[in-house]
Amino acid sequence: MHEVEEALRVIKRGAQELIPEEQMVSLLRSGRPLRVKAGFDPTAPDLHLGHTVLINKLRQFQDLGHHVMFLIGDFTGLIGDPSGRNATRPPLTPEEIERNAATYREQVFKILDPERTEICFNSTWMRELGAAGMVRLAAQYTVARMLEREDFQNRFRSGQPIAIHELLYPLCQGYDSVAMRADVELGGTDQKFNLLVGRQLQETAGQPPQVVLTVPILEGLDGHQKMSKSLGNYVGISEPPNEMFGKLMSISDTLMWRYYELLSLDTSLDELGRLQAGVSAGTEHPRDCKARLAREIVGRFHGSGAAAAAEAEFERRFRGGELPADIPERAIAVAEPSAPIAWVLREAGLVASSSEAQRLILQGAVRVDGARLSDVDLRLSPPAELLLQVGKRRFCRVRLSGGQ
Amino acid sequence: MHEVEEALRVIKRGAQELIPEEQMVSLLRSGRPLRVKAGFDPTAPDLHLGHTVLINKLRQFQDLGHHVMFLIGDFTGLIGDPSGRNATRPPLTPEEIERNAATYREQVFKILDPERTEICFNSTWMRELGAAGMVRLAAQYTVARMLEREDFQNRFRSGQPIAIHELLYPLCQGYDSVAMRADVELGGTDQKFNLLVGRQLQETAGQPPQVVLTVPILEGLDGHQKMSKSLGNYVGISEPPNEMFGKLMSISDTLMWRYYELLSLDTSLDELGRLQAGVSAGTEHPRDCKARLAREIVGRFHGSGAAAAAEAEFERRFRGGELPADIPERAIAVAEPSAPIAWVLREAGLVASSSEAQRLILQGAVRVDGARLSDVDLRLSPPAELLLQVGKRRFCRVRLSGGQ
Repeated sequence: MHEVEEALRVIKRGAQELIPEEQMVSLLRSGRPLRVKAGFDPTAPDLHLGHTVLINKLRQFQDLGHHVMFLIGDFTGLIGDPSGRNATRPPLTPEEIERNAATYREQVFKILDPERTEICFNSTWMRELGAAGMVRLAAQYTVARMLEREDFQNRFRSGQPIAIHELLYPLCQGYDSVAMRADVELGGTDQKFNLLVGRQLQETAGQPPQVVLTVPILEGLDGHQKMSKSLGNYVGISEPPNEMFGKLMSISDTLMWRYYELLSLDTSLDELGRLQAGVSAGTEHPRDCKARLAREIVGRFHGSGAAAAAEAEFERRFRGGELPADIPERAIAVAEPSAPIAWVLREAGLVASSSEAQRLILQGAVRVDGARLSDVDLRLSPPAELLLQVGKRRFCRVRLSGGQ
Repeated sequence: MHEVEEALRVIKRGAQELIPEEQMVSLLRSGRPLRVKAGFDPTAPDLHLGHTVLINKLRQFQDLGHHVMFLIGDFTGLIGDPSGRNATRPPLTPEEIERNAATYREQVFKILDPERTEICFNSTWMRELGAAGMVRLAAQYTVARMLEREDFQNRFRSGQPIAIHELLYPLCQGYDSVAMRADVELGGTDQKFNLLVGRQLQETAGQPPQVVLTVPILEGLDGHQKMSKSLGNYVGISEPPNEMFGKLMSISDTLMWRYYELLSLDTSLDELGRLQAGVSAGTEHPRDCKARLAREIVGRFHGSGAAAAAEAEFERRFRGGELPADIPERAIAVAEPSAPIAWVLREAGLVASSSEAQRLILQGAVRVDGARLSDVDLRLSPPAELLLQVGKRRFCRVRLSGGQ
């Protein structure tokens, strides 16, 4: 069964947990195309590389011959914010959901094979379920067991309100697995509890319980915090090729291997091992590895032509592709939750004053992690590691840390 | 506003709580017919006098000119047992619910005026609500506040399971009030929490919150435990006139005044005061008061002719209506949860042996609280007070108490 072992190795690449592994093995042994489910919120179709970790894993399942069900949680979207924390946000209209779904499709089909992807909407079966079905669903789980979920537990203990409908979400998500007859469900590590609820509901419904596979949350460009738009440490999959390339070239070597593991689809685990060994032995240059990864990722979203052009532009911009060998490093402590870019540039010794910083930004002479900065009001939040550049020649690698 | 005061006096008769009273007063002052709601479980249409306390109160509202909405909780019935404790009981079919509703109608229209009664089914609006509506409903209440309900709190603290759908019931009941635009909702004291949820949901929906009126749980013939079929201390409203009359004549004088307050519709509070004063002064005989109440109640369910005949039969049976003046009393301790009637008869000194007791029961010579006993296997549960009779002349008033 060499084939099954090889498939299992691909499936486990970068994954956090596989529950239970034996069941995954026996599913793979069955030889039939598995029904692989992953659910997505219909409210945030503007994806960044962090979101693609999961989508890449789906793609790997497709390459192994399995059937991917890309579930858009429009039922959730129609009833408003699941977290209950933002009670005033109006629920999405069917038109907005349809628009978001279209954007999703456009984006994910840069990774997924449309031929092997089924786009599902959970309103299909949730509407049919009705109020009575929802009550029956709620009858399948106790309050105490639901409050074992870590975030619920913390909120309940600390007296923070939990709205009753929040208890229904894991059940709805689990019911999706029943309706979809999922063999495998993928999700972020924060989804583990909900994914396990799916197993239980499937068993109650007389189905074999799905295998649960969790993938880690991707670190952002700073290498510390999770990649997120609001933290500013992200690479959006719709960003222009040059920005994307520059940002990926700015990451640390350690983070590069993490990104290889989670973001590369072209580099097999064996090849990745060879690359790492090469860098250790000094026969491979880390910068070349980084460029190879950046090429792959830019190529995925913009085509290989655009990737090559972005690489050329990057090389030209940094004097033949070489960053100066002697970039100074500076640790800067930030007392506030965030600091203005102008102040950071001054602290880094790249400008003499905040007003000089602002003028240079407006002239387009300032780059952060290789990308040209246009926002004079940008604020940076610690902890972060950034490559700052002013003009052609002034560089500084700054490490922002939180206030004393 | 003498009229409003008088109406308020009728409404408060025998009631446990009226929340808030000022609002009830201003509703009464408005002069318009109020929409008065009470909900009933579709599973138990075999009513006893305990159930009629609430229905009597509805009748009093009708007599004051208001509109009664008799709600049959068929949505609940379709989804199975609300308590979650009897998970195996199959949900009722629509046919069973329709049959039960017909039985309800037949029974309650002996008390209510059909012209002023609207029979409602909550499936009407609950089906329309759908799964999404149910989730929106659940979003209106927090887990912590729901767990403040006393029975939930006790179960949660002691680690007994609470199924999540049980949290939805108070919300469904509250939503009924919104859908029905209830001005007033009536319920037993154990319903208080749920009735108050209705107020909150109505306010959220932009409606004036309903006034909540709770009525006490009626004591059974023993005067201690609540009237219930399983405790055997009840008077079913479909029982034959003679049984009903005999049972009512067997109650203690104290319990008689309680029953007057809660079960009589013909005796006004003023008249009731006069009766009580008469008994205290010795100008009224308690037995006559008891007979008057028994006549009213038997008459309500069987007509005044049948009531008169039952009274005559009762008088004839007990030698001209007089129970012996010297009925012995006996306290009997029961070690088990219940004791066989044959054993109790022997302990009471009415028979020499259990086999004699069984023979006499089969001959129809044994009466319990004036009603002929046919079940040789009857078991009696302490605490209880019973009037036992064997043949024409042997009587004993027994007081059963729990085991040592």
